[in-house]
Amino acid sequence: MNLRERIRDVPDFPKPGIVFKDITPLLLDPAATDAAVRELAAYAREREAELVVAAEARGFILGGALARELNTGFVPARKPGKLPHQTVSAEYMLEYGVDTLELHADALQRGTRVLVHDDLVATGGTARAVCDLVQRLGGDVVGCAFVVELSFLEGRARLAPFDVHSLVAYDAG
Amino acid sequence: MNLRERIRDVPDFPKPGIVFKDITPLLLDPAATDAAVRELAAYAREREAELVVAAEARGFILGGALARELNTGFVPARKPGKLPHQTVSAEYMLEYGVDTLELHADALQRGTRVLVHDDLVATGGTARAVCDLVQRLGGDVVGCAFVVELSFLEGRARLAPFDVHSLVAYDAG
Repeated sequence: MNLRERIRDVPDFPKPGIVFKDITPLLLDPAATDAAVRELAAYAREREAELVVAAEARGFILGGALARELNTGFVPARKPGKLPHQTVSAEYMLEYGVDTLELHADALQRGTRVLVHDDLVATGGTARAVCDLVQRLGGDVVGCAFVVELSFLEGRARLAPFDVHSLVAYDAG
Repeated sequence: MNLRERIRDVPDFPKPGIVFKDITPLLLDPAATDAAVRELAAYAREREAELVVAAEARGFILGGALARELNTGFVPARKPGKLPHQTVSAEYMLEYGVDTLELHADALQRGTRVLVHDDLVATGGTARAVCDLVQRLGGDVVGCAFVVELSFLEGRARLAPFDVHSLVAYDAG
């Protein structure tokens, strides 16, 4: 299964000069989606993950399917004001400005082996914020798994020392 | 499997007087999540759905797992500015003001039998907007499936004549 063929380049989105990697064609293809989930799950099993924590919103699509494949719980990392119960929150840098993600404070037990998932890793800021939140709750981040990695933005460096796995990597924008 | 026991009441969220139905405990329980996905899938099969269209963001969590269970494609309905390719958009009423949802214009073929999914139906405005978008693209909405239904807000009436199925209904706020 060539997942790369199911990822569409959309030039100048969200702004001029950026080539957006669009996974919606992959999501329309059940065989490709199944292959992606199985490959993410193989990595998660190798890392002995016990819980999937995924970032809002695109990370939820395969994240939920991944947790089901692994027979683990699923925890959503969300933008401020979305989670109804008590939360912990972390700010992270965007290209311009900052954003915030939250986890429910009761989302995981101390020592839980957590896989962090998002559809795409660019600079790694979002996933790093999720890792930090998991650690703050006493969880053990055993790996970060993405469908798409924009390697030239060096998200792996920002996520170190956490282990990173991606299914399709792009070396240049 | 008693799914209702896995749904938490959070009083006064998002504002005083509202009791929020929080599905995050259900998502932490793989057996409960599996039961929910299987039950949603049974309904979708009965309606002969060929595609799952789900609303951002919580609808993505079980929506992705549901599409995988059904071996169908998955289409995200998103807030404005999130989908990178050409879109169609629909406004819908909130308690105060309006909001907008979008689908990719190439998300489905004419005549495709579509299941619309969200985690929760309240007044039905969000799901109605998704149904309208699916129809605008020539799709056939064969049913709307939710985990939680706030029956007292009469979302079913707003979604008529579309068929509605929910796993856990609440008759009073």
